[in-house]
Amino acid sequence: MSQRSTAQTDFVCGLDAALRVVGGKWKPLILHFLYRGPHRYGELKRCISGVSDKMLIQHLKELEAHGIVSRKDHHEVPPRVDYALTRLGKSLAEALMPLCDWGERNRKTIASRLGKAGGAKGNG
Amino acid sequence: MSQRSTAQTDFVCGLDAALRVVGGKWKPLILHFLYRGPHRYGELKRCISGVSDKMLIQHLKELEAHGIVSRKDHHEVPPRVDYALTRLGKSLAEALMPLCDWGERNRKTIASRLGKAGGAKGNG
Repeated sequence: MSQRSTAQTDFVCGLDAALRVVGGKWKPLILHFLYRGPHRYGELKRCISGVSDKMLIQHLKELEAHGIVSRKDHHEVPPRVDYALTRLGKSLAEALMPLCDWGERNRKTIASRLGKAGGAKGNG
Repeated sequence: MSQRSTAQTDFVCGLDAALRVVGGKWKPLILHFLYRGPHRYGELKRCISGVSDKMLIQHLKELEAHGIVSRKDHHEVPPRVDYALTRLGKSLAEALMPLCDWGERNRKTIASRLGKAGGAKGNG
């Protein structure tokens, strides 16, 4: 783990760099929904069924730190905080679309292959 | 870890499915080189500087199990084994190109952001 942090910015290629930003179970989905427009935290939580508050907050913080998502606090009572994609975030969401389509098109095949590979692991 | 294996094929979206196949530090690079044409193991090892035999073999086995890479043993002495992309693998490599370009274009920004985020973690 410490190796990862020292070599954090030592990318083997552009794709490696991109995957470091977008890697994380819920990040692609966050990008997907924010691409449609700014969302409040609660809206995102409802959109992304199954995500815990801990994970969603962590992912949003990371995406914000990486310049992909911006957070706007309207300083209202009750609190109103919007999340939106930055220009960099929008370009990332667009670059992800063909991969998203590929995953959708091949979802069944991938599921079947991953299932088999999981069961067959260690059979060489 | 056990949770991941039971939910191995329970994708949240197409992108999640795709990232499960392509996730892994060296997999994008393997796809990149095999997209140019079949490679022998030793050629791949030379192309991908920094990868260990253990990791390269593991990644190739996983990509083969997931239907992305095919392995052809020519049953010759000395041994000759070629790796190539399957049709599914070629379509995946193509779907990855925009993301690869995005990563190349924004490599410096990402490196600087990841570096800062690593240092600032926990300042929340």
